[in-house]
Amino acid sequence: MTIVRAHMSISLDGYTSGANQRFEQPFGDNTEGFNDWMFRIPAVRRMFGLEGGGDPGPSDDVFTERTANIGAIVMGRQMFGGGPGPWKADPVWKGWWGDNPPYHCPVYVLTHYPRGPQPMAGGTTFHFVTEGPAAALAHARESAGDKDVVIAGGAQTVQQYLALGAIDELELHLVPMLIGGGARLLDHVPVSTRFEPIRTVSASDVTHLRYRVVR
Amino acid sequence: MTIVRAHMSISLDGYTSGANQRFEQPFGDNTEGFNDWMFRIPAVRRMFGLEGGGDPGPSDDVFTERTANIGAIVMGRQMFGGGPGPWKADPVWKGWWGDNPPYHCPVYVLTHYPRGPQPMAGGTTFHFVTEGPAAALAHARESAGDKDVVIAGGAQTVQQYLALGAIDELELHLVPMLIGGGARLLDHVPVSTRFEPIRTVSASDVTHLRYRVVR
Repeated sequence: MTIVRAHMSISLDGYTSGANQRFEQPFGDNTEGFNDWMFRIPAVRRMFGLEGGGDPGPSDDVFTERTANIGAIVMGRQMFGGGPGPWKADPVWKGWWGDNPPYHCPVYVLTHYPRGPQPMAGGTTFHFVTEGPAAALAHARESAGDKDVVIAGGAQTVQQYLALGAIDELELHLVPMLIGGGARLLDHVPVSTRFEPIRTVSASDVTHLRYRVVR
Repeated sequence: MTIVRAHMSISLDGYTSGANQRFEQPFGDNTEGFNDWMFRIPAVRRMFGLEGGGDPGPSDDVFTERTANIGAIVMGRQMFGGGPGPWKADPVWKGWWGDNPPYHCPVYVLTHYPRGPQPMAGGTTFHFVTEGPAAALAHARESAGDKDVVIAGGAQTVQQYLALGAIDELELHLVPMLIGGGARLLDHVPVSTRFEPIRTVSASDVTHLRYRVVR
């Protein structure tokens, strides 16, 4: 059975990215160290071809669970990148992740600007959806079959799907730092949304909180 | 050795109280159920003379730790209550907690309006401090001796002490609900503040996250 799930790094003050996101600083101001917990995970280091084995520990198991059984992914335009507005033809922006992105499945990108599918190495194909979040999720569900659909981010995209009541599980990777400005994950979500704790995993640098989302 | 610590219930979207706090609804809008986790704890039920034993579980241990070894308490005017502005002489507001408040030690209340000490049954005396947060903390430290000082709240008061670098330990009782507006605990805190996880305790209705605060 398909589960629609989202997994986000979030600061103690509730931000998933800082102010002034830009090419040189994709996560924005005051986000230094925000994703370090992830780059200490052996599976992540292997995925990105980084030297050194990293630190096997509770986060390793969480990340392995998180990346298993994914049939399709949905992400916002800003997470895919390439700047705002119409797509530029030269150079063609193919995401932040190089020729072989770490997704290995169909990825549906929400955008206001039409563009043909962008196949990549390793089984990833970026599809650009202009009909809105519900349509993108329908495409993703169809592609995923019995596997899960992951709403990859960013904050605004996850908010949209929470508002639609379309997310079954939300995992917060709570990073013990403050960002102090930017995009807050849980703004603009109906307060009637309820969260039931499924499990908590603690590491020295992050706490993983998984919730069932109930409307 | 005295530890200065704070313990706050906080919603998933970062609020410790809702908008429109008022006498009839001290925690403000959209806070129904926000403190239910606490009233399921046997020690809390005994403290407030409530019927039924409650639910012994991980939160019971957390609450027992939280209330042990307290030498003095600091709280903001709004947490003490009695409305804004000068103190009214008739009736005299003596806090929300009845004749025998659950503190049993000196409590320093931050206020702009002078008032003499208010002794209560059970060892609680409310002292009203007009010289600001640093002075209130100095008084509390002196009263506490080797015991701990607790910054009881609300959000603004905890923020002030975090900004002063005066809090050694912060425990968040993360309640899996949204409040959607009101006072956010970790706004207006310097982003240079670092938090080191000490321990996490999970219950079905709340997750207790304890951090060492480092400046």
